[in-house]
Amino acid sequence: MAGRQAVKAYLDLLSQPCRAVLIFLKHNKIPHTVELIALRKGQHKTPDFTKLNPMQKVPVLDDNGFVLTESDAILKYLATTYNVSDHWYPKLPEKRARVDEYAAWHHVNTRWHASTIFLQEVIFPMMGQPKNPAKFEKALRDLDGTLDMLENMFLKRQAFLCGDDISLADLLAVCELMQPMCSGRDILKDRPKLLSWRSRVQSALSDSFDEAHSIVYQMKQKFSAKL
Amino acid sequence: MAGRQAVKAYLDLLSQPCRAVLIFLKHNKIPHTVELIALRKGQHKTPDFTKLNPMQKVPVLDDNGFVLTESDAILKYLATTYNVSDHWYPKLPEKRARVDEYAAWHHVNTRWHASTIFLQEVIFPMMGQPKNPAKFEKALRDLDGTLDMLENMFLKRQAFLCGDDISLADLLAVCELMQPMCSGRDILKDRPKLLSWRSRVQSALSDSFDEAHSIVYQMKQKFSAKL
Repeated sequence: MAGRQAVKAYLDLLSQPCRAVLIFLKHNKIPHTVELIALRKGQHKTPDFTKLNPMQKVPVLDDNGFVLTESDAILKYLATTYNVSDHWYPKLPEKRARVDEYAAWHHVNTRWHASTIFLQEVIFPMMGQPKNPAKFEKALRDLDGTLDMLENMFLKRQAFLCGDDISLADLLAVCELMQPMCSGRDILKDRPKLLSWRSRVQSALSDSFDEAHSIVYQMKQKFSAKL
Repeated sequence: MAGRQAVKAYLDLLSQPCRAVLIFLKHNKIPHTVELIALRKGQHKTPDFTKLNPMQKVPVLDDNGFVLTESDAILKYLATTYNVSDHWYPKLPEKRARVDEYAAWHHVNTRWHASTIFLQEVIFPMMGQPKNPAKFEKALRDLDGTLDMLENMFLKRQAFLCGDDISLADLLAVCELMQPMCSGRDILKDRPKLLSWRSRVQSALSDSFDEAHSIVYQMKQKFSAKL
């Protein structure tokens, strides 16, 4: 589009949905600039950032003055306004509905349960709150239920969560499922079906996956050095 | 479409997202049949229903063999495949992104917090678990934060959550915000801005709103008779 500037993304790469947005921008070569907002330094609570997003959350996208929050909405918006392959967010209503279905399910399933493990094992201890064994065991059981559904429902008859090719659903999911890796925990290690799926997703995303996840690999090293 | 049969919706009208789907179907005169699935009777756990939806949840839509779950995805699918007014789910990317943004935010905000009040005040006591005062007070505070955001962010400069006309966002939100009414609690009563918004939504939906909510009004009567 004439006169269209590069989009600006406000991100903290330790945030799973932020990584999903960055991978999508890089992989699809969408012209962009990144402004890092360090949650650990409270940079999401400054007056300037609060003006941009009253929710005080990342990611935020600024596309030439159009400011959008929520990774799910940001990814769908980028997929429909930029020239990216159809498989990310198919135009065919039945196929698109499958991506919308996963994205809706994602919030209180994949995202909720994988995040809880990360919070309990990494963030709360950093804030001086020791891990609560009963809550942690429950979180692991809840996560197991979610992983079962990913294997037995979404991946039942197909290579990716919503069909034969990668979509926004896989991108949202993989970034959440990588998060507990920060404490060295690979939640997929005993699940060959999900492990093969993750390899396929990683291959499809090539370099952009590892680039965005370098902070996770660093956290993992720091965490194992502390033990 | 030639040969297209009426869609079939599997619903329990005590479920907020099911009411949203029913209102949308009725209001937009989309040919449909309803099969009631009574959650309180465990009808979502029968082998037949589990085959239809392994998640054992409602709503489920069956459009001529295409089976879809998640109210968010169902509403977007209906809005794009049936001939309904554009305002429900606008085609313009910036406007559509606003509906996607609210729908993504909705899950762990409006839906989560309003549901918690209903569970604590209606469902748990029915199951023999008395209301936990500390948890209930926290739930009310969390809900307050969500209602503040609805007023100060989404409704800041406009009549409906995503613009000047009703959209899927308002429909999803209003059904959740009505739910605590089952125990006689009107969570919007001290919030004139949200009360006017609810009146506008109700007017826009006309009869379909009250028809779908008759079960909520009945619950409210039963609940006040018990006190």
